[in-house]
Amino acid sequence: MGFWSVLTYAHKLAEQRIKPGETVIDATAGTGADTLALTRMVGPKGNVYSFDIQQEALERTRSRLIEADVPADQVQLLLLSHDQLQEALPIASHGRIGAVLFNLGYLPGGDPTVITQPDSTIRALDQAFDLLRPGGLLCVTVYPGHPGGELEAAKVDDWFSQLRPEAGQAISYRMLNRRSAPYVLAAEKKHITQK
Amino acid sequence: MGFWSVLTYAHKLAEQRIKPGETVIDATAGTGADTLALTRMVGPKGNVYSFDIQQEALERTRSRLIEADVPADQVQLLLLSHDQLQEALPIASHGRIGAVLFNLGYLPGGDPTVITQPDSTIRALDQAFDLLRPGGLLCVTVYPGHPGGELEAAKVDDWFSQLRPEAGQAISYRMLNRRSAPYVLAAEKKHITQK
Repeated sequence: MGFWSVLTYAHKLAEQRIKPGETVIDATAGTGADTLALTRMVGPKGNVYSFDIQQEALERTRSRLIEADVPADQVQLLLLSHDQLQEALPIASHGRIGAVLFNLGYLPGGDPTVITQPDSTIRALDQAFDLLRPGGLLCVTVYPGHPGGELEAAKVDDWFSQLRPEAGQAISYRMLNRRSAPYVLAAEKKHITQK
Repeated sequence: MGFWSVLTYAHKLAEQRIKPGETVIDATAGTGADTLALTRMVGPKGNVYSFDIQQEALERTRSRLIEADVPADQVQLLLLSHDQLQEALPIASHGRIGAVLFNLGYLPGGDPTVITQPDSTIRALDQAFDLLRPGGLLCVTVYPGHPGGELEAAKVDDWFSQLRPEAGQAISYRMLNRRSAPYVLAAEKKHITQK
């Protein structure tokens, strides 16, 4: 049967935790696969905020949503960096977000020199975790295989490894015998945080 | 809800793959938790071979099975090392085993100086993987926290990382922000192996 792919694994983690009607975030829209999956998890009364710094990514995401008949007002497509989550989300939603998903690296089929950068990614993780409700999920798919990817992966590994156990639980899910394969890092916010 | 514990994760991997009526192995009986779980997965027509080098572990396993009303003839308790799997299993079962589970380290509540050793553990992994049927599961829970555990963990990590992709898929599942916590390494044998 094979083990779950990292994409399947990330979506399983999300669908087990996201509640219908809540607000969630795709921090890196890319081709829109996560954004579309998130609209189904939150259902018709939920909202998805979807970020990307490339107009091309937002267009591809928009097309994918239209093809799937997702109502236009259910997703906010924002031409912003993943380290602008906090300023872009309404204050009232802070601490109430059900999940934030990241896919690091570059836009498949896009410009491979436009990649997520370690420093802004780390800022983005801090912001994403702060935005979560208790029990909320931060899930990052890391791509160590492209130039610059390994350094970013190491920094993101450190971020999850250093998460205070009082603030949340952190796990990794990884294919071991495929060099440079993407892997999943995830954190669940504690119900009572002492951060 | 929290993430699955490593014990739960290992059992989920096993129950998704083990078929009723087949033969499986607990390579390190310990307190018998895996052996008991395996008897339920293979059902009344299946068989479990359970290995441990400590009589105390086999006694504890036997007590646990009796308490749970497992028929005595369903489990073979063998006072042998995990690197004697191949010689202990009937030749006819070689290449037909559904799963082999390992829990490394020492017997909880037993003598903490009696620990699994890297060299025999690596031999045991080679044997276990050879015994599997196509689609069969090798699942190892690694304990890096005790003296000697870290070295063994590194060697077992290497074994899984070096598994040829043509022979099988290998994954890890790990808590990241609990220092020295146990973690799971697992491999699924390919349906067509070219080993």
